[in-house]
Amino acid sequence: MENGDNGKRKCKRFKEIIFKRIHILQWLPQYTKLDAVSDVIAGITLGLTMMPQSMAYATLANLPAQYGLYSAFIGSFIYVFFGTIKEVSIGPTSLMALLTLSVCRDLPIEFVILLCFLSGCVELIMGILRLGFLVDFISVPVVSGFTSATSVIIIMAQLKGLLGIKYNSQGIIDWAYKLYLHINKITLGDSLLGIACMIFLIAFKQLPKIKVKSETSKKILWLFSIGRNALIVLLTSLLACYFEQKWGKVPFKIYGNITRGIPDFKPPQFSTKMGNETLSFIDMVGMLGSGVIIVPVIAVLANVAIAKSFAAGKIVDATQEMVTLGLCNILGSFVQSMPATGAFTRSAVSNASGVRTPMAGLYSGTIILLALTFLTPYFYYVPSATLAAVLISAVMFMVDYEIIPKLWKINKFDMMVTIATFCASLAYGVELGLVFGVIISLIPLLKMWTRPKIKSQTIALQSGEMCLLLELQVGFLFPAVDYFTQETVKILNNFEKMHISVVIIDFSTVLRLDYSSMQSLQNLQKTLKKMSITTKFINVSEEVSAALEKYYRKDELVFCYSDSGKLLENSYKISFSKTNLNEQLPLLNC
Amino acid sequence: MENGDNGKRKCKRFKEIIFKRIHILQWLPQYTKLDAVSDVIAGITLGLTMMPQSMAYATLANLPAQYGLYSAFIGSFIYVFFGTIKEVSIGPTSLMALLTLSVCRDLPIEFVILLCFLSGCVELIMGILRLGFLVDFISVPVVSGFTSATSVIIIMAQLKGLLGIKYNSQGIIDWAYKLYLHINKITLGDSLLGIACMIFLIAFKQLPKIKVKSETSKKILWLFSIGRNALIVLLTSLLACYFEQKWGKVPFKIYGNITRGIPDFKPPQFSTKMGNETLSFIDMVGMLGSGVIIVPVIAVLANVAIAKSFAAGKIVDATQEMVTLGLCNILGSFVQSMPATGAFTRSAVSNASGVRTPMAGLYSGTIILLALTFLTPYFYYVPSATLAAVLISAVMFMVDYEIIPKLWKINKFDMMVTIATFCASLAYGVELGLVFGVIISLIPLLKMWTRPKIKSQTIALQSGEMCLLLELQVGFLFPAVDYFTQETVKILNNFEKMHISVVIIDFSTVLRLDYSSMQSLQNLQKTLKKMSITTKFINVSEEVSAALEKYYRKDELVFCYSDSGKLLENSYKISFSKTNLNEQLPLLNC
Repeated sequence: MENGDNGKRKCKRFKEIIFKRIHILQWLPQYTKLDAVSDVIAGITLGLTMMPQSMAYATLANLPAQYGLYSAFIGSFIYVFFGTIKEVSIGPTSLMALLTLSVCRDLPIEFVILLCFLSGCVELIMGILRLGFLVDFISVPVVSGFTSATSVIIIMAQLKGLLGIKYNSQGIIDWAYKLYLHINKITLGDSLLGIACMIFLIAFKQLPKIKVKSETSKKILWLFSIGRNALIVLLTSLLACYFEQKWGKVPFKIYGNITRGIPDFKPPQFSTKMGNETLSFIDMVGMLGSGVIIVPVIAVLANVAIAKSFAAGKIVDATQEMVTLGLCNILGSFVQSMPATGAFTRSAVSNASGVRTPMAGLYSGTIILLALTFLTPYFYYVPSATLAAVLISAVMFMVDYEIIPKLWKINKFDMMVTIATFCASLAYGVELGLVFGVIISLIPLLKMWTRPKIKSQTIALQSGEMCLLLELQVGFLFPAVDYFTQETVKILNNFEKMHISVVIIDFSTVLRLDYSSMQSLQNLQKTLKKMSITTKFINVSEEVSAALEKYYRKDELVFCYSDSGKLLENSYKISFSKTNLNEQLPLLNC
Repeated sequence: MENGDNGKRKCKRFKEIIFKRIHILQWLPQYTKLDAVSDVIAGITLGLTMMPQSMAYATLANLPAQYGLYSAFIGSFIYVFFGTIKEVSIGPTSLMALLTLSVCRDLPIEFVILLCFLSGCVELIMGILRLGFLVDFISVPVVSGFTSATSVIIIMAQLKGLLGIKYNSQGIIDWAYKLYLHINKITLGDSLLGIACMIFLIAFKQLPKIKVKSETSKKILWLFSIGRNALIVLLTSLLACYFEQKWGKVPFKIYGNITRGIPDFKPPQFSTKMGNETLSFIDMVGMLGSGVIIVPVIAVLANVAIAKSFAAGKIVDATQEMVTLGLCNILGSFVQSMPATGAFTRSAVSNASGVRTPMAGLYSGTIILLALTFLTPYFYYVPSATLAAVLISAVMFMVDYEIIPKLWKINKFDMMVTIATFCASLAYGVELGLVFGVIISLIPLLKMWTRPKIKSQTIALQSGEMCLLLELQVGFLFPAVDYFTQETVKILNNFEKMHISVVIIDFSTVLRLDYSSMQSLQNLQKTLKKMSITTKFINVSEEVSAALEKYYRKDELVFCYSDSGKLLENSYKISFSKTNLNEQLPLLNC
């Protein structure tokens, strides 16, 4: 019987895990017709936005445009089954494109696909190891500085395409200087088209703000606004087509040939030839370097950040999101995808289009597959300046300058963090900027660890002795131990005239002890012993008391017990938090 | 009158600073004859230890031996005036030699001297900016792994000298492999002499353990033990001299010419020629790279660590030690010194010799000056193998293997930290090993920040409503905010049947709030509002309440007040820490 129960329990547990991990099982049974209609509308809108965006992002990463499309469908499909947040759309993003460019600069395309595969593996491992908590160290000011810098970098990169010039640059100053050098190479056709597209996109974005009476007109305006990216690509491509038919020549750069068809499903290449050399897997990973870690970490960060911003109070299962992202990228690499993650811009489109479940991804992914099968010949005419305009208009509103005056009012240190992250990202790249921002934002917390506030007060014991009560406000961790010893001696010197013979250390905030803190505690005890002062502990948790008993010899350690023989816990706590302690306190019985 | 008072106060403050910074003023007035005698004995002993050690360390750093002596006297003199710990002896150390070697490999000697000057400047700046707290992040397990690795690296480097072979290696595996390749180049003379010296040094170290009755014999044994380094250098040099006189040839490597005389006092070179190129100051600093930061940071770490280990509970003024070290290195660079810091081995000698005040440095420094003036011709005969043996026997007991079983018992994570620091130091160099160790040892603390324990319990209000009390055990900092929101929702779901209508968050552990935590708090409040639950705060400190009021609109924020109109502080704290709260608690009046 018991075996049967055990088996049942195991079976139930297994079901629970399957239910938790294959997330579609949770919402599909309740899927309604209304859900389906909403998801179809949202999915198609999303697909039409995704198509030009993906091509533009591939260009940003220095890849042929079809690779953007390859990266856009598999993530959409997989997210349907495993994803938890309905708004998230996995695919190429500006951030991933930038990172891919900086990791794989001048390397052949096999490296980009291998990077996608390895990123997926790292994401999966992070999910399995439950490293989601790492994301929590990225504070709002850091995210703000980082997002703004990314937007500025994308605008910088795309402005070149918009003006019809091409050069590589390192950092914002180099970019501006080279722009100045190339100023005479700006082509009139591209610039005019680019600026026209920008005006079109910004104007169409405002369409839903126009006050109209009829509901139908409202909906039409909204559709034009949402579909503006696809629309401008269509219009300008027709224009290019027209120019070629009429003049045999197009007065601006057009995209050129895009390989047609759905990519083969095959594993990424684990060795490749470069020049005359054959590179092994190890060589390739070596050339990708720290990118193998940085790309997935940033991808996870971006994805969890989006998930959080749309979850609105719901619990985001960071582990599940990491596992899903890992699967998307691993399988993505089998269809020659570049590294993918959730995109802010597309998630906003999903949200605005009234998405109901992750099912929408099925429709957006299908749109991309249809585009690859049937539309690629027409992409020949897509003007480069149009793609640049699509990207610039998508990110220009993500530069978060509004946070600065807010932070100035609320927390000037956080303002400094935002500005520092922004500047470091512009100067040294977004990865380093992010790491730098995280380190700076940890400084006040680290400072709190090394220089914790210590509450102290004197108190009379039942035995008639005078005693000093000490409490550390953030526990007793190794960075604080030396400071605590110093301060204790200082406090004792201040109370010299009171003939203190006992020091009681309140351990109620102490959640753990490490070797350094125990060693220092022993040193403190020895120092106090030389001054003929006994050290005692109070409010010691069982875990900490077990750790102390391992380190100390029995006779070195004195805890305070209550009359009932239990470690003094609450009775003391009451007294210590009273300000008028000396009057009301029952004498301590240590 | 007030002006006069003000002037007097300023004058007093100025005097205090002078007194604190020129530390000799504090102890010189009480200097006794007995102090003087003790310091002379300790100083001379120290000087005789320092002489061969300094030469050996210079060799370790790939410099001519006289540079070790140049580095040994100025630090000793300056520390007399500014130093606070009587045992500390500033001069060349194994650690600094190793770092200098890794920073200045293949660079001319001007770079070493410039590095010394710049290190001094950085140390001085660190002192002025009071960055001493940074040292607190280096825990005992990290120091242990780091010290052991340093010792092993020194032994590895010196073993080559002991065996009479020479090669460069990167990391321990490369070293062992190259040792194997060079095994047929080992010279018999050097090896025999080296091993003999090792036996001599280890045996003489044990001398004080021999049980003798008379006090005089005890003292003689002690003197021989302390003077063993100087003695073996003297004996083997005489041996070399004898071989040359008799055979015209020495059967082992000897040191060769050492430049005689005290170095000129002149500023370090801020530009230099390398090959045909003239290098500017900027070029030179660029070639020193990150060493300009790493060398002084490690120097400060080592110095403060020594100071702490000998201060035995006394307060170590880390700022003063940094300033002093800075002065030693800046002035040191004017007499062509290599970067210097306090040495563990010499401090132990000082301590064992009965040092009383920093005055001992005056005598040890003088011994070095005398050696430079009169003894350099005789240094010609010092065998290289003897210097190697001196170094190896000094550091071989610093490999701290005993800590491993101790940590195994007490704290397995700390054991892992020690081993990781040790291995990383051996594989990637001591600087990186140290940084790696610090980062790992912070992980449990970081984990505590992101996943703090949350105390929760339900409680009835005077109004008859049910209320949920929440307390975060480590405050409310940005890494924990998302987790707190999630957990709150989870807890509320667990208590679903109790119809909770108020959530009270206990802010008694909250010492500060940042922008992220405030934003998240607002999100939590909104989420709860959707569930028709009010959020209130209790035990809010004035600082935190001011910050909250800047962020929130007035009507969004609800504090709990006591009957007297004060923010509820202690009355609540009492109740919350009680385990049998529901019985004893006066109903809360929120």
